Amino acid sequence: MNVSFLSDLLQSIAERGRALLGRRIATPRAASDLGSLCEDLLSRRGEASGVALGQEILVRWSGLDRAGRLGFLLMLCCRFGADRARLAAAIAAYQAEASDATALELHRAAEPRRQEVIRRLNMAPDGIAALVGMRADLLGFQREHPELAALDADFAHLFSSWFNRGFLVLRRIDWATPASVLEKIIRYEAVHEIQSWDELRRRLAPTDRRLYAFFHPQLVDEPLIFVEVALTVEVPATIQSVLADSRDPISPEEATTAVFYSISNAQEGLRGISFGNFLIKQVVEDLRRELPGLTDFFTLSPVPGFAAWLARERRAEAPAHLTPEDREALAALDQAGWPQDSVAAEQVRKLLLPAAAYYLLHVKRPNGMPEDAVARFHLGNGASLERINFLGDPSPNGLRQAHGVMVNYCYSLDRIEENHEAYFERKQVNAASAVRRLLRRRGEARELIPANTTSPSARQAIGGNQES
Amino acid sequence: MNVSFLSDLLQSIAERGRALLGRRIATPRAASDLGSLCEDLLSRRGEASGVALGQEILVRWSGLDRAGRLGFLLMLCCRFGADRARLAAAIAAYQAEASDATALELHRAAEPRRQEVIRRLNMAPDGIAALVGMRADLLGFQREHPELAALDADFAHLFSSWFNRGFLVLRRIDWATPASVLEKIIRYEAVHEIQSWDELRRRLAPTDRRLYAFFHPQLVDEPLIFVEVALTVEVPATIQSVLADSRDPISPEEATTAVFYSISNAQEGLRGISFGNFLIKQVVEDLRRELPGLTDFFTLSPVPGFAAWLARERRAEAPAHLTPEDREALAALDQAGWPQDSVAAEQVRKLLLPAAAYYLLHVKRPNGMPEDAVARFHLGNGASLERINFLGDPSPNGLRQAHGVMVNYCYSLDRIEENHEAYFERKQVNAASAVRRLLRRRGEARELIPANTTSPSARQAIGGNQES
Amino acid sequence: MNVSFLSDLLQSIAERGRALLGRRIATPRAASDLGSLCEDLLSRRGEASGVALGQEILVRWSGLDRAGRLGFLLMLCCRFGADRARLAAAIAAYQAEASDATALELHRAAEPRRQEVIRRLNMAPDGIAALVGMRADLLGFQREHPELAALDADFAHLFSSWFNRGFLVLRRIDWATPASVLEKIIRYEAVHEIQSWDELRRRLAPTDRRLYAFFHPQLVDEPLIFVEVALTVEVPATIQSVLADSRDPISPEEATTAVFYSISNAQEGLRGISFGNFLIKQVVEDLRRELPGLTDFFTLSPVPGFAAWLARERRAEAPAHLTPEDREALAALDQAGWPQDSVAAEQVRKLLLPAAAYYLLHVKRPNGMPEDAVARFHLGNGASLERINFLGDPSPNGLRQAHGVMVNYCYSLDRIEENHEAYFERKQVNAASAVRRLLRRRGEARELIPANTTSPSARQAIGGNQES
Amino acid sequence: MNVSFLSDLLQSIAERGRALLGRRIATPRAASDLGSLCEDLLSRRGEASGVALGQEILVRWSGLDRAGRLGFLLMLCCRFGADRARLAAAIAAYQAEASDATALELHRAAEPRRQEVIRRLNMAPDGIAALVGMRADLLGFQREHPELAALDADFAHLFSSWFNRGFLVLRRIDWATPASVLEKIIRYEAVHEIQSWDELRRRLAPTDRRLYAFFHPQLVDEPLIFVEVALTVEVPATIQSVLADSRDPISPEEATTAVFYSISNAQEGLRGISFGNFLIKQVVEDLRRELPGLTDFFTLSPVPGFAAWLARERRAEAPAHLTPEDREALAALDQAGWPQDSVAAEQVRKLLLPAAAYYLLHVKRPNGMPEDAVARFHLGNGASLERINFLGDPSPNGLRQAHGVMVNYCYSLDRIEENHEAYFERKQVNAASAVRRLLRRRGEARELIPANTTSPSARQAIGGNQES
Repeated sequence: MNVSFLSDLLQSIAERGRALLGRRIATPRAASDLGSLCEDLLSRRGEASGVALGQEILVRWSGLDRAGRLGFLLMLCCRFGADRARLAAAIAAYQAEASDATALELHRAAEPRRQEVIRRLNMAPDGIAALVGMRADLLGFQREHPELAALDADFAHLFSSWFNRGFLVLRRIDWATPASVLEKIIRYEAVHEIQSWDELRRRLAPTDRRLYAFFHPQLVDEPLIFVEVALTVEVPATIQSVLADSRDPISPEEATTAVFYSISNAQEGLRGISFGNFLIKQVVEDLRRELPGLTDFFTLSPVPGFAAWLARERRAEAPAHLTPEDREALAALDQAGWPQDSVAAEQVRKLLLPAAAYYLLHVKRPNGMPEDAVARFHLGNGASLERINFLGDPSPNGLRQAHGVMVNYCYSLDRIEENHEAYFERKQVNAASAVRRLLRRRGEARELIPANTTSPSARQAIGGNQES
Repeated sequence: MNVSFLSDLLQSIAERGRALLGRRIATPRAASDLGSLCEDLLSRRGEASGVALGQEILVRWSGLDRAGRLGFLLMLCCRFGADRARLAAAIAAYQAEASDATALELHRAAEPRRQEVIRRLNMAPDGIAALVGMRADLLGFQREHPELAALDADFAHLFSSWFNRGFLVLRRIDWATPASVLEKIIRYEAVHEIQSWDELRRRLAPTDRRLYAFFHPQLVDEPLIFVEVALTVEVPATIQSVLADSRDPISPEEATTAVFYSISNAQEGLRGISFGNFLIKQVVEDLRRELPGLTDFFTLSPVPGFAAWLARERRAEAPAHLTPEDREALAALDQAGWPQDSVAAEQVRKLLLPAAAYYLLHVKRPNGMPEDAVARFHLGNGASLERINFLGDPSPNGLRQAHGVMVNYCYSLDRIEENHEAYFERKQVNAASAVRRLLRRRGEARELIPANTTSPSARQAIGGNQES
Repeated sequence: MNVSFLSDLLQSIAERGRALLGRRIATPRAASDLGSLCEDLLSRRGEASGVALGQEILVRWSGLDRAGRLGFLLMLCCRFGADRARLAAAIAAYQAEASDATALELHRAAEPRRQEVIRRLNMAPDGIAALVGMRADLLGFQREHPELAALDADFAHLFSSWFNRGFLVLRRIDWATPASVLEKIIRYEAVHEIQSWDELRRRLAPTDRRLYAFFHPQLVDEPLIFVEVALTVEVPATIQSVLADSRDPISPEEATTAVFYSISNAQEGLRGISFGNFLIKQVVEDLRRELPGLTDFFTLSPVPGFAAWLARERRAEAPAHLTPEDREALAALDQAGWPQDSVAAEQVRKLLLPAAAYYLLHVKRPNGMPEDAVARFHLGNGASLERINFLGDPSPNGLRQAHGVMVNYCYSLDRIEENHEAYFERKQVNAASAVRRLLRRRGEARELIPANTTSPSARQAIGGNQES
Repeated sequence: MNVSFLSDLLQSIAERGRALLGRRIATPRAASDLGSLCEDLLSRRGEASGVALGQEILVRWSGLDRAGRLGFLLMLCCRFGADRARLAAAIAAYQAEASDATALELHRAAEPRRQEVIRRLNMAPDGIAALVGMRADLLGFQREHPELAALDADFAHLFSSWFNRGFLVLRRIDWATPASVLEKIIRYEAVHEIQSWDELRRRLAPTDRRLYAFFHPQLVDEPLIFVEVALTVEVPATIQSVLADSRDPISPEEATTAVFYSISNAQEGLRGISFGNFLIKQVVEDLRRELPGLTDFFTLSPVPGFAAWLARERRAEAPAHLTPEDREALAALDQAGWPQDSVAAEQVRKLLLPAAAYYLLHVKRPNGMPEDAVARFHLGNGASLERINFLGDPSPNGLRQAHGVMVNYCYSLDRIEENHEAYFERKQVNAASAVRRLLRRRGEARELIPANTTSPSARQAIGGNQES
């Protein structure tokens, strides 16, 4: 409604940032260590001078070395837990009379004091950026210091609230985006590496390419997560066809299909704060509004755990899926260059596609969810597994992680809710019949999956080529 | 660093808003009431379709009448408290072993489910605006339905976190600000009413007038709180001298003193979420940076409770402050037009200034804090009481609430922390010696307040005229 | 393509403006008068320091009183004409041999030196604003000093080039526009006065109201010309129905008709530089693209010269149109309050509509163009006269200038070119048959206007109610 | 004053551009060729539909091949000159009576009709961009078709007016600038090629590097001219020290000297429309305001004609400067790698510096101005020649064009006007005494240049190292 005013508003954020760069930071009072500064932050002094105190703590933090940072985080973790005495009293009062008032006091008493420390640090200029960075450090330390999990839970709780979908802004990134943001896209792309500015341009500038990111207004230069989209007239089976240097771009109006071919989280410090789900759905909605000709929404996704599983299966005493003949035939995989050998490739293809279908449909973690992380992400979002592509990614990396296999997941907005529920409630992998047929031929699919899982509309969505 | 990108970013917020205005809202499924929609929101369905579900609930909410809204809030309050069974189990586990893990589970179990309902409603487009409005309704109902306090505590907890200082943006409002924002300044001004756009212009456009507001990036058209500032060369004793139609504005570079003559909260739904403290301090900092010639920062403030207290005092059997002679002399106050009668006015002046000093220094609420709300705000911020002005506001409203008395509080950045602490720890009202002398003459001041409270620098700040 | 960069770009303009406000202007060298400063501007010194010199001249100009300004303009006019000697030589050379080179030199020699003075003054910061103001002054002096016409021709020539349509930007003005621009809309509205900010809001904020203006990027706060538009479902016959306080706005999607009910030039200094033509056509194009349901584009226009002409006609010895009976009956017009007297009003109506038709169709200036200025504007743009409305504007002003008559002109994009040509080539007033019929009944229309002027589509556009 | 409104304003330009991309262009009427379309443009039809007609012509132009474009330009040139009959009549009238009116008509009649064609083409959307491109083509054809000079004079006349300094906007280009603009900096950099985005970053992002460009609001993505600046503490003698990969940037506040080390015109179509003069002076002014510590403004410039002149001199029968011994010694230049041979380099140095001084001070074009184009530019701007640097650019390109010699020109704001005048009026090359001394040793300088040309302040500006 009021774009211009908005722009001034955010300019204020930027200008404040600029002002801070030039601001002289007072040298800290010698006597006080960071722990007591955090105590101050929670005290009367913190009420009066929280912004300045928070800034002082964050400036000192940024000057600490690795050991100093670990020390600070451990101190925060053990010294600023819930007030045990207050909590015991609150429990007693609640057990005496379970009223609204006693429940409220119990809730407050159970909150670790760390959370208020973090909230007050956030008042400092650019506090949120510093805190996201602090959690990135924390996650790095956590492997060796599992006791930091309690502090991490506090960060995760607050970040989930602060980075609530309602506070995020979706932005299209294109060739008119500032170079300072674009260089971060190059740096953070985690799926199909961007080698140069020319390659970046090929992913942004053509009429049939899009890149969208979520931003938080207080972290303006930092994409939180981004997705790369190709607008096409069919569902691509290989990543090379998407990334080819020499394509004739189509006009967006011709496109029928949007393909999400890369999704990257950009902020290590926000790990576990889930945006990807919202991002894809928002982009689907926005693209449908902008381009009514778009009817199909697919991914072109890697299968990162497939090669490792297959290696275990080939070595196993009692493989779940492979027959002894299969194992013998799959020895072809050990010959470098098999994809170029058409006889070997055909031999592999016959076994690899059913094996991938088996892996994606039946190989589960102890909690009953799929072994494959990318499968968990898309299926958990309510997408369905639509097609398995042989040699979808014949790059060294693609061969290493999945013998070149890639898959397409389908986002059909009117089935997402139902799929999501079936996935979480019944641990059901929603897959197209073509995928299931890969197994049915082997007799592994029939009893497990009801015949009517894939709707006619979903089948229609993907067109004839899925059956090939 | 990157203003232009920012402006696009926020444009996205605005455009999304626009898109929503035109979006057809699906008619709600007949069977489900709002309560079960809220249950859905917390369920699997909420994970998959939280944005749409939240939007549906908020759209329905906006269509409810008063009774419907009360019903919804009461339902939310009693149906979405903490899960008692889970909480009991968590208490038991914690009491068995007070580990990080059991403490964390206790914290989670003690959180009312209402909080997660509110967080998920916030995911809907413009959710935060709807939620701030919802709390405004809630506060209206609370007088007659004190049981809503539990729900209000949840709103207050989340809003404190979401409207954390770190997420607010300070913006100067001037005559180039969109009219859609300016009309809200007119509407929300709570201290000295703005009668017309011409009067608004006089408060914004002259070179020696400023207006600053805090905004939240997701509530772009809505100022949260704002302060009006006059740049002067002395501390004004009357509001009429500040608001006069015909002044010759001075250039900002000439000014030595910034006077905060009006502070208004704009969002009823954010009542109790304290911004004023941060606002004034930020404006002081920014003004000092922009105009190095500014050395003194004062308010010109009303004393809203003074007339009511004085009326009680005049009626009291055993007045705390007034002598029988005082009471007789103060009968002049009952004559309309006394301020214009110089004899009556002089008679009143002699008694009114000490009475106001007594009221501000010694009349306390049961918890030991000053009776006067404005005094509590500024003293709580760490300001000190510097001067009491006779007939500072001779308008009907000024006469009604304080017999025309106004006061100046002083914000001296290097004393704020100390004052704040003295105020909260020792319940000490920090006041200039000139104010205390008003009582000392009557023998009421000596024993209570240490003689050295006001520093020389503070006295110097206000110049010679404070002693008058 | 690149909005954000644009916004920074223009920010540069604004910031430069700000910087200038604070810039100390060097006191002018005592010896040099403005005339010799202008000579300097055209000299070597002007090449080296044109920006500063231009600024010095403009600052001095702004400090001149009325007499000083007149003196400056007269000096410019007579001292900086073409170099007569150079011109004579150029003519001689051209007459000797009419080559490209001699023609070019002739063109250059014939250019008054004033034009280069104006171009170099424009290099000064905010030069264009100062020059537009200078021409406004010039136009004021010209009545008494017709010799200034030569200088005015130079301004007009340069402004036509500088304010070329290609350099103008169309902007919608709405309630989110800065107050500093809105107050200029209030000030410059020349057709139907805007009495208050509330009334302005009623013309901007409702969903079925629009206001568009042309801006020049270097005059960012100054609308050049603006048009007010009502979106309706029929062609309004009265301005009161358009401006009514209490209307139920319709949604833009329902509208079939856009009504241009007020067009105002905002810059006296750009008089004669025609934007109105482009403005209306651009708004028609933009509205059609945005709202495909809009099919009809009409004005609701005053007839400013009608009452004056009718008064002359009523007094004339040999009136062109009125019969003696008409004159007698029109005496009703002299009774204040006739519009409220239904008998008198009906009597007037019968005569006033044909008289207005006669005035618009047949009363011409010596050059054969219509007497009425508003008619000249719209007919010259290629619009046609579609309907004459009795008591279309019964306000005191409307009664005074046209006895309440208003008219609708029709902008039919596919007929504009043809109408424009017929109007200028054959001096033909393009009018609907319903308008001509008002005269045909009296036998005044038949011989003059071909029967088939108005196309069926135009008639259809205005619907049945035009015959009333 | 009003940044936000500005940004919306320019957004309108961008959005219009976008809208046009999708607009279907009507197929041209078969019968009309471009010539008659241009006639239409000047006719009644052009008044009514100039924007659309102009667009049609420009769209057709963009579809023409090389021969078609040449044909169009030649047609425009010869068919749309001044109206000879009207011109003859105007001359006759003027000769009969030389009044303002007859002079005005003469001026108008002498204007080639081409100018009005160009003005009306500019009304089309993005017309100015198309016209700048058209002139670039024109300049390409002009060598073989000198008769196009007349048309070129019209373009140059209008562009000088349209790209008047008052309409240009200075913008800093930095790493937050859109990539779409940055890639043009890479493409247009004409002095020291930018090899990669990393190198671009090194010229933009460090705290002591700046890049400024002029833009025209209607050509928003297109820099017109830009200058690259290094902030330093001394005047650099070699370009390698400026462009080094591994420098420790200094803070802008430490810098005393701004070095303009590269100036590039970006628009071939604006050749001859001089911006460089204004650009440098504006940047000097802005930098002084922003960084009061900056006191000295120098260039580090190539000497593009030096090697060619020296080659002629070495071959000449009667060289103006070289002695036979000089020529013999300079044979060292013909050995590749001489700069690395310290003996050869020292031998060369002794002769090359005086030769360069001679070249810059005494080698002139027939009109008396310096032979060297870069020297003409800076000296014409009022700069002075301050230092000649041996092996200032030992790159292959630097060796080829000037045997590695580079020079520093000095922009001293308080001497620019005087220098400019001396340069143009007396054809005097303003040079520091250190430069002149290079010749004085040889007895070539004494008689030509007054000893007191360089002021003490200029000498002081460059510090002690200039004498080395």
